[in-house]
Amino acid sequence: MTSCVVEEPIKKIAIFGGTHGNELTGVFLVTHWLRDGTEVHRAGLDVKPFITNPRAVEKCTRYIDCDLNRVFDLENLSKEMSEDLPYEVRRAQEINHLFGPKNSDDAYDIVFDLHNTTSNMGCTLILEDSRNDFLIQMFHYIKTCMAPLPCSVYLIEHPSLKYATTRSIAKYPVGIEVGPQPHGVLRAEILDQMRRMIKHALDFIQHFNEGQPDVQEHTASKEFPSCSIDVYKIMEKVDYPRNESGDVAAVIHPDLQDQDWKPLHPGDPVFVSLDGKVTPLGGDCTVYPVFVNEAAYYEKKEAFAKTTKLTLRAKSIHSTLH
Amino acid sequence: MTSCVVEEPIKKIAIFGGTHGNELTGVFLVTHWLRDGTEVHRAGLDVKPFITNPRAVEKCTRYIDCDLNRVFDLENLSKEMSEDLPYEVRRAQEINHLFGPKNSDDAYDIVFDLHNTTSNMGCTLILEDSRNDFLIQMFHYIKTCMAPLPCSVYLIEHPSLKYATTRSIAKYPVGIEVGPQPHGVLRAEILDQMRRMIKHALDFIQHFNEGQPDVQEHTASKEFPSCSIDVYKIMEKVDYPRNESGDVAAVIHPDLQDQDWKPLHPGDPVFVSLDGKVTPLGGDCTVYPVFVNEAAYYEKKEAFAKTTKLTLRAKSIHSTLH
Ligand SMILES: [Zn+2]
Ligand SMILES: [Zn+2]
Repeated sequence: MTSCVVEEPIKKIAIFGGTHGNELTGVFLVTHWLRDGTEVHRAGLDVKPFITNPRAVEKCTRYIDCDLNRVFDLENLSKEMSEDLPYEVRRAQEINHLFGPKNSDDAYDIVFDLHNTTSNMGCTLILEDSRNDFLIQMFHYIKTCMAPLPCSVYLIEHPSLKYATTRSIAKYPVGIEVGPQPHGVLRAEILDQMRRMIKHALDFIQHFNEGQPDVQEHTASKEFPSCSIDVYKIMEKVDYPRNESGDVAAVIHPDLQDQDWKPLHPGDPVFVSLDGKVTPLGGDCTVYPVFVNEAAYYEKKEAFAKTTKLTLRAKSIHSTLH
Repeated sequence: MTSCVVEEPIKKIAIFGGTHGNELTGVFLVTHWLRDGTEVHRAGLDVKPFITNPRAVEKCTRYIDCDLNRVFDLENLSKEMSEDLPYEVRRAQEINHLFGPKNSDDAYDIVFDLHNTTSNMGCTLILEDSRNDFLIQMFHYIKTCMAPLPCSVYLIEHPSLKYATTRSIAKYPVGIEVGPQPHGVLRAEILDQMRRMIKHALDFIQHFNEGQPDVQEHTASKEFPSCSIDVYKIMEKVDYPRNESGDVAAVIHPDLQDQDWKPLHPGDPVFVSLDGKVTPLGGDCTVYPVFVNEAAYYEKKEAFAKTTKLTLRAKSIHSTLH
């Protein structure tokens, strides 16, 4: 017998676009929903689309002074406001004021933050906490609705790697990452996929609040029964080989390019240099690479991240409304 | 009987990378050749690799103040030097001093300018003048060597569209554009293709100077016999549908996405909006689209360019050396 999690109904939801100003799918959708919110309206829910980094969006660049998606730690959020602070730190404080404060009862229930990647990751949901029954249930629901299109879950829980993401101000932070798409470009199929992910997420929340039937079970149960999903948990980031000047000295090997989520075995080629030297995967365990050749991560010294595959189980949940 | 063109041997060649600082294949190759020029060395030739926009390369952005690849007109090149000029105009004057002056006898014979595009254009050679026998011969040679991989020729000769490209300071300007590749990313197969294009181009020049055998003909002829190539000539640029605020209101239709160089017929879908409205191709002639969904052209208001296909014929050529 599994126990059941009873939670308050969800009330306040934000959908963030433009946290990285050149990731255009979220910018395009959020801008559209700000003009006409019909598509994201759900009875009983307050759904607020919001452009988080308008100056970066205006310039179609990732950021102005620093990465907005890495400054929502309490240190930056509590710095005394000053014109000398990086633009994104000032903006983070404004966003924290509007949608937080982080870790407070006033904070928004859910923030969806919309991103694109140049990596061939398809539809990706990013989870920050492996024990979050509500989000595991939501992700299970979205995955089921998106099938047969794969929708992968990237778990960024890690003892030392800290992200301080924009969405982390919410009680339930949800990262949505869809690719491959060059930054500064809108591709129709990527747009359609991200739009469907948000639709299913909002439907799930409404079902949770109102006790609607579960799509998969075709029952009228007032709760979401316990479920499980496969997730890929970050292990470590891998940098490019670099020369003495710190410049990239080899590129992702063609056998690894576009192979996000696929098993990569010890000895498999990872990098290739201009003189044909191949760097194989070291170690003795199979990993699952993600963010392979993401443009924005060259400066973060990350050619890809290694993940390990595991299964997360969520208890059954229902809201206190029913 | 066709006449023959006799030209001076080629002496000075430059290979430009980083004209757009986030188009990394050229940056990577040129940086490598600056460290070790063995690969681009050819007996009797002065081959100079050169990073044209180092500040944009440093920031991994297309440009600092304005597009370097559009300011090599005589007006900008003759402006009085001042710190108030856009960085790229100042840099253009420096480049013109080093490799030009444009339209003078001192100018470099050939400039290869290396670019990437997010469009699915494969290997592309850009020609500025349809009557240039030498370059048509060179492009014919490169196409033959690259086969079976397609290598397309984009002719940007147009009565009103003026480019004022960086390479235009040379007697023979050659644009090399390889995609699809997101800006800010290095893909191994794109790197390999651009590298091979430069290899074949340099081989051609050496053969031209020295009277080497033609690869296709397997003869020891001292001249390159007359030849012809298919080229795609620019007709007009097409902007995205835009709303009253000037924002993009529809995206490239999935049927057109990645279909560069493929025939596009009147009535074929071109754009699709969020509410599903499809914009078809107007007019009554088949066109060949290029630069479909190039990231850098959103700000230039160009969703793609329409081209028409035609055949250019070159006279036989040989150098005065033999
Ligand atoms: Zn992002
Ligand atoms: Zn370019």
